[in-house]
Amino acid sequence: MPQRSPLDLPEGDPFGPHNLPYGVFTTPHAPHLRRIGVRYGSHVLDAGAAAAATASPHAELLGAATLNPLMAAGRPVWQAVRAEVLDWLTNPAHRPTIEPLMHPLTTLALHLPIEVADYVDFYASEHHAANVGRMFRPDGDALTPNWKHLPIGYHGRAGTVLVSGTPIVRPQGQYLPPAPAVSSSSPTPSAPSAPSTPSAPHTSSPTPVFGPSLRLDFEAEVAFVVGAPSPLNTPVPLSGFHDHVFGLCLLNDWSARDIQSWEYRPLGPFLGKSFATSLAAWITPLDALAPARTAPPARDLPLLPYLDDSTAEPFGFDLRIEVAVNGHTVSRPPFSAMYWTAAQQLAHMTVNGASLRTGDVFASGTVSGPRPAERGCLLELTWGGRDPVHLPDGSRTFLEDGDEVTLTAWAPGAHGARIGLGEVTGHVVPATP
Amino acid sequence: MPQRSPLDLPEGDPFGPHNLPYGVFTTPHAPHLRRIGVRYGSHVLDAGAAAAATASPHAELLGAATLNPLMAAGRPVWQAVRAEVLDWLTNPAHRPTIEPLMHPLTTLALHLPIEVADYVDFYASEHHAANVGRMFRPDGDALTPNWKHLPIGYHGRAGTVLVSGTPIVRPQGQYLPPAPAVSSSSPTPSAPSAPSTPSAPHTSSPTPVFGPSLRLDFEAEVAFVVGAPSPLNTPVPLSGFHDHVFGLCLLNDWSARDIQSWEYRPLGPFLGKSFATSLAAWITPLDALAPARTAPPARDLPLLPYLDDSTAEPFGFDLRIEVAVNGHTVSRPPFSAMYWTAAQQLAHMTVNGASLRTGDVFASGTVSGPRPAERGCLLELTWGGRDPVHLPDGSRTFLEDGDEVTLTAWAPGAHGARIGLGEVTGHVVPATP
Repeated sequence: MPQRSPLDLPEGDPFGPHNLPYGVFTTPHAPHLRRIGVRYGSHVLDAGAAAAATASPHAELLGAATLNPLMAAGRPVWQAVRAEVLDWLTNPAHRPTIEPLMHPLTTLALHLPIEVADYVDFYASEHHAANVGRMFRPDGDALTPNWKHLPIGYHGRAGTVLVSGTPIVRPQGQYLPPAPAVSSSSPTPSAPSAPSTPSAPHTSSPTPVFGPSLRLDFEAEVAFVVGAPSPLNTPVPLSGFHDHVFGLCLLNDWSARDIQSWEYRPLGPFLGKSFATSLAAWITPLDALAPARTAPPARDLPLLPYLDDSTAEPFGFDLRIEVAVNGHTVSRPPFSAMYWTAAQQLAHMTVNGASLRTGDVFASGTVSGPRPAERGCLLELTWGGRDPVHLPDGSRTFLEDGDEVTLTAWAPGAHGARIGLGEVTGHVVPATP
Repeated sequence: MPQRSPLDLPEGDPFGPHNLPYGVFTTPHAPHLRRIGVRYGSHVLDAGAAAAATASPHAELLGAATLNPLMAAGRPVWQAVRAEVLDWLTNPAHRPTIEPLMHPLTTLALHLPIEVADYVDFYASEHHAANVGRMFRPDGDALTPNWKHLPIGYHGRAGTVLVSGTPIVRPQGQYLPPAPAVSSSSPTPSAPSAPSTPSAPHTSSPTPVFGPSLRLDFEAEVAFVVGAPSPLNTPVPLSGFHDHVFGLCLLNDWSARDIQSWEYRPLGPFLGKSFATSLAAWITPLDALAPARTAPPARDLPLLPYLDDSTAEPFGFDLRIEVAVNGHTVSRPPFSAMYWTAAQQLAHMTVNGASLRTGDVFASGTVSGPRPAERGCLLELTWGGRDPVHLPDGSRTFLEDGDEVTLTAWAPGAHGARIGLGEVTGHVVPATP
C-alpha cells in the first residue's frame, strides 16, 4: 500500500487548510539554518523553499530566519502569503514541487518563531484576578478599584521568552520562609504564609531566605504577536487590532509564587516571572480564527471611549484550552471568559503614545473560567497550596522537579472543524546547584 | 591667529582623554549613515573612519551603526579599543589622520547609541522610596518590608527608550479626577488626591477620567548598559559586574503621576512610564569612572550572600547630578547616596536564572539624596504638588507644556579632573489632539 502523501490530510485535522500556522524550524542535516515553516497536519512545509521554487514574490520574507520580516510587512501581505501557502498545499498542480518540501514534524527542531521586542503581560481574567486578590489581599476587595476600568498589565522580560519544549530550571531567589504546616497531612506550607500582606504575621520584621522556589507554578495564557509597528504618539484604536496583530499562540507564564509574593510590592512582579516564559512554536494567523470570534462578557461598568467595545465587532476568541501535568488534565480554561480583549489591551497599551514594534508580544494573563476546574494556574487550583491537585502519580500543591506541563487548545473553525493551536510544553528540572 | 585643533583640549575639559564616551551620530551630508563616535571636548571623532584609516583590528566593531557589536565583544576588547582611541586622539603621529575625522558636536545629529534589549528600572534610593511611600501610603510604613532585603525593580518598555533631545509629547490616559483645591492659592490639585490608597476618598467608587496627564514629572536616574551577555541559568555574581557592564549614562524616566497612581496596583507601573524614557547620547565606559568608585551607604540589615557587598570592592559611583528646568537648577541629586549598587542589581536580576543580552539597560530609579534640594523628581520636590518649585518664569508643581528638563552630571577623575557625563534633555510638547 503506498504511503499517504503528507498533503492528503485526514478529514478534520486540526492543522488543516484553514489553520496554517507559522513557525521556524531546523533539520538535523542543517541545524544552524533556520527556516520558516507552515504546519500542515503532522508535517511542516519548508515555506522558504516553496517560495523559491515557485518564484513567489514573497520569497525574501519567507526565506528569513524569523517571522519578523513577514510580520512587519502588514496585513495585505499576510493575506496574500496565506492565500499563496494555501494554494501550494491544496492545488494539485503544485504537488510535485511541494511534496518534497514537507518534513515530518517529529524530525524537526522547532525554534522561537519570532524575535521578541517588548513583552507585556496582562491580567484580563476577572476570575483569576478575583481569586488571586482574595488570596493575596484577604482583608481587601478581591479586585482593585481600577480593575474594571482598564486592562491591568506590566512589562515582562523579553529576553527569557523561550520556545515550547525548553526545559525550565527551577528558579532560586528570596522568599519568606514557609510557615509551619498546621496539619501534619499537609505536604507543603499552608497558603496564607506567602503573601506579605499588611495583615500577614511576617510584616513586623520579615526575614527572607534564599533557595529554590518551593511554589513553582504555571499560568495558562494566550499571547498576541504584533506584526505591523505603530509610530510614537499615535494610539491604535480598537479598530486597528487586525492591522497590527499578526497572530496568536499559547504561552506559559511560569511563576515562582514565593519569590513573587515577597518582591511584588510596590512595583509588581519581577524575578518571580522573569526566569522563563514559554511560547508556542506555532503562531496562528488571526484570519484563521475568524470563526472563533466571540463577544466578551458583558461589561459591568461603562468604559472610557478608547476602550468601549459595546458597538464594536466582537473581539473575544473562543479558544478551549487544556492544561495537563504529566499527561493528566488538570484544567480546561475557556478563553471566551476573558473580561478584557486583546483589542482593548492594544488600545490601552498605546493610548499614552507608546509605539508598537514588530515582535511585541502581549499576553492575556492567566486564563481562568468561573468554575474551579477552569482555573489556569496551580495557585488557584490548589487555593494557594491548601487543596492539593490529585494526579495519578501523586498529589501536587505546586510543581515538582520532573513535572511536565503542557498547554493545548483548539478553536471552532468553519463547518464544525477545529483549528488547533500549537502546544506549549516544558518540564521542570532541578535548580542549578 | 590659527584656529585651535580639536585635538588640543583646554586643561580640565570634562570630555578629555580620561573620559572618551561612545555615541552614534550622523552628519547632515549623510543623514542615514549612522556611525560610532567618541566625544572629545566639543568635537566627535568618527571612530569607524579612524579605525578604517589606521587598519585597526576593531574596524568592523567600530564601523557598526550601534554600539552593540562592540559591547558584545567583552571587556578585553573594550579595553583594547579604549586604548586605541586614546592613542588616536593623543599620539601626535596620528594627528594628520585623525584631525580631519573630528566633527564639531553642534553639527551632528545624535542617535540612540545602543539597540535596547530589555529595560529594567530599579528603585534604589532609600530617600526616594521612603518619600514616595510616605506620599502614596500615608498609613503604612514608608518602605515596604522587602526594601532593604532586595533591590526592588520592574521591567519597563524598551521600545520607547529615546535618545536625549527627543521631544516628549505629554501622554494621555486614565486617572482619577483631581480633588477640588482646598486653598484658592493652590494652582493645582492638592497632593493626596491622586494616589488610590485604601484610605483615599476615591476608593469606594472611583471613576477615572481620560485626558492629558496633569502631573507630568521627570526622574533623574543613572542607567547601566550590559555589554557581554550571560546564558540562562547562570547567575552573575557581584564580581562579574565589570565583565558584563559596558558603561553608564544619565536617564530621564518621564512619569505621569496621575496615570501611574491609578494603574499601579497590583502589578506596578505601566502606562505612567511607558510613553517615553530618555537616554543620554553618550555612554561612558566604566573604566573611565574608576576614580569615582565609592562605597555605598552602610547597610542597615545583613544581606543574603548573593547581595552581600560588605567585603567586596566598592560598587558605588560618586556622580554629581544636576537637574535643570528651563535652565534653572532645581535639584542636585548625589548618586553616591544610592542604597543599592548596580552590581547588586545585576546579581539580583540574574539570580533566578534570567539571562542577560547585549543592550540590556538597567536604571537606578530616581536618584534622591537626604536633603530636600537633592530630590530627583518633582513628585518629591513639590511633595506631591503641595509645595510648588519656584522658577524664574513662574512656579511649578508638575511640568508644563514647553518646559525643558536637562540632566547633567560629572564624576571625580584622576588628579582633580572631572569626568563629564552626556546630558539628557527633552522638552514637553502638548498632548496630541
